[in-house]
Amino acid sequence: MTSSRPFNFAPGPATLPEPVLRQVAAEMLDWHGSGMSVMEMSHRGKEFGSILEAAERDLRELLAVPANVRILFMQGGGLGENAIVPMNLSRGGKVDVVVTGSWSRKSAAEARRYADVQIAADIGKSHKIPTDWALRDDAAYVHVCTNETIDGVEFHELPQLANGVPLVIDVSSHVLSRPIDWSRVGLAFGGAQKNIGPAGMTMVFVRDDLLGRALNICPSAFNYETVAANQSMFNTPPTFAIYVAGLVFQWIKGLEYGGKQGLAAIEQRNIDKAALLYGALDASGFYENRVDPSCRSRMNVPFLLKDEKLNDTFLAEAKAAGLLSLKGHKSVGGMRASIYNAMPLEGVQALVGFMQDFEARHG
Amino acid sequence: MTSSRPFNFAPGPATLPEPVLRQVAAEMLDWHGSGMSVMEMSHRGKEFGSILEAAERDLRELLAVPANVRILFMQGGGLGENAIVPMNLSRGGKVDVVVTGSWSRKSAAEARRYADVQIAADIGKSHKIPTDWALRDDAAYVHVCTNETIDGVEFHELPQLANGVPLVIDVSSHVLSRPIDWSRVGLAFGGAQKNIGPAGMTMVFVRDDLLGRALNICPSAFNYETVAANQSMFNTPPTFAIYVAGLVFQWIKGLEYGGKQGLAAIEQRNIDKAALLYGALDASGFYENRVDPSCRSRMNVPFLLKDEKLNDTFLAEAKAAGLLSLKGHKSVGGMRASIYNAMPLEGVQALVGFMQDFEARHG
Repeated sequence: MTSSRPFNFAPGPATLPEPVLRQVAAEMLDWHGSGMSVMEMSHRGKEFGSILEAAERDLRELLAVPANVRILFMQGGGLGENAIVPMNLSRGGKVDVVVTGSWSRKSAAEARRYADVQIAADIGKSHKIPTDWALRDDAAYVHVCTNETIDGVEFHELPQLANGVPLVIDVSSHVLSRPIDWSRVGLAFGGAQKNIGPAGMTMVFVRDDLLGRALNICPSAFNYETVAANQSMFNTPPTFAIYVAGLVFQWIKGLEYGGKQGLAAIEQRNIDKAALLYGALDASGFYENRVDPSCRSRMNVPFLLKDEKLNDTFLAEAKAAGLLSLKGHKSVGGMRASIYNAMPLEGVQALVGFMQDFEARHG
Repeated sequence: MTSSRPFNFAPGPATLPEPVLRQVAAEMLDWHGSGMSVMEMSHRGKEFGSILEAAERDLRELLAVPANVRILFMQGGGLGENAIVPMNLSRGGKVDVVVTGSWSRKSAAEARRYADVQIAADIGKSHKIPTDWALRDDAAYVHVCTNETIDGVEFHELPQLANGVPLVIDVSSHVLSRPIDWSRVGLAFGGAQKNIGPAGMTMVFVRDDLLGRALNICPSAFNYETVAANQSMFNTPPTFAIYVAGLVFQWIKGLEYGGKQGLAAIEQRNIDKAALLYGALDASGFYENRVDPSCRSRMNVPFLLKDEKLNDTFLAEAKAAGLLSLKGHKSVGGMRASIYNAMPLEGVQALVGFMQDFEARHG
């Protein structure tokens, strides 16, 4: 499937599957003969009820979420969850955070409002996930960001915590790009705007036994037990974002690639896309990615031009070639290609082709 | 302008202007030649920056928001704000709440997590806003819900608080239906899903001098001072909802009615719609609205069939006649017609015509 649109490497909000956008446009004035846009539907009506139910069912199926893990669709965003998680799980006690980049560092800072936070390990400037973690057996939970959007660092295997403390994972920027080993997870959360849909929806996957621990100062709208007891309808959920997410889930279920289907297909495609881009970076003396190969992200690939004076030219020429939003995060500099689920292999091929051409002309 | 779509009286999410939906559909794959849907744009890019800037400017112009009042676009919803307001303004001290229905009662309950809450007055079952308020001079603020969606009660004039305590108003379900007298307001907030756009966006209008009072347990993402200092971009805002809201603001600016334009036109149309519907209810012995005429809502019109056994028939026949979502809230029963900004006069005329016909056949 080829597209006439440019390839958009934005880190989130990010590119979405074109068939999903076409369907959203087609259904904008009248969803399934209801006479309403999904934006206009009461969240308590049977039409939206069916949308929510299908979205949850498909998400549960795609990620093989076990029955004892509740799926919540909430408002508040990934950054909001940095506070909402400790409000719900810390009990005002101890929280251990593994810092692997900007997002886990933010999470640690926010959790300090509610808990005794200890940095169990810190990646510093090493670009490699540390293996030696100082964990406390009496911690309420251990927080890990399993894909750092800014730093391009990803866990390719979840830690197995020997002490039985629940593991909390922030999966915002790689959810649905690969399976999750639920046997190692107490809670997972993520904003929607990378791999799922529009900004404004947050997903929380929480194990039953972790409900009911919220601090009294936790707002009702963000209390997992309350939200779970009301099937994500305690307050008005972000209905339109849930609808778009549901279409994305359907799109993943139907995706075929490399003889695989669904999540296995999208994972294989992500592996191939990442291999192609990192391979090109490593083969070049002109570009550089500094992340240790053991923990390079399949989703976010930051890279530097060794001659930084060429940055602006690179971005301008890339845009002219239909390759958008490649500027790196201001804290890191250089470039960043975010190659989420909806980025086709052709997009990465086009980027690599452009990079090689650019190097040939400027190297 | 007539529409081929049914008329949707849902209480929120609610009907939106058809021209806005058509524009959203048309721009879904390529906003203004950017090659991206608004859903796919980085919130830090210049394209979304221009959307946010225009939305804020138009909203400020429509409501004549003074320069010392900041406009924030946030996540979290109206119910979330019931906690976020006291986290930001109460300082852990006293909060006085005027209870005029279900929403202000919820606000009072939520604020108790953070403050010493006193019910300054309670409408009880009187269907009339009480005039005798027990206010404390040392309260951090006074909370009023200026339109009660469930109960159909609206303030047609904001109270002038003699004691100088800031007035907080929950305008979720009538914002942009009429002007706001900012000289009497410290903070106004509202969810978007009634008069503005998709659920998942919350607007906060806060006077400069009320910033910087947040409790330490207030999450950064919900701290008004932090959000204001970052122009609503501390975290990823609900970008697509802001875009739709911006189109709605443009639609209101261009609306002409009764020789008026913009907010004055929409207010006049709302006055006429409400007069038509309440007039029909009062002229009938078959239907009944119990709210005192001094405080009947222009937006939400709950009414009862005196013979409740006809409720299901009424709803079924109304739906067949293209009049959707008229079922009343479960706590009130009967019917409710929400006639927000986007409901044309023709929709209310069609409803009144149907009601009269139904009465003729069943009365």
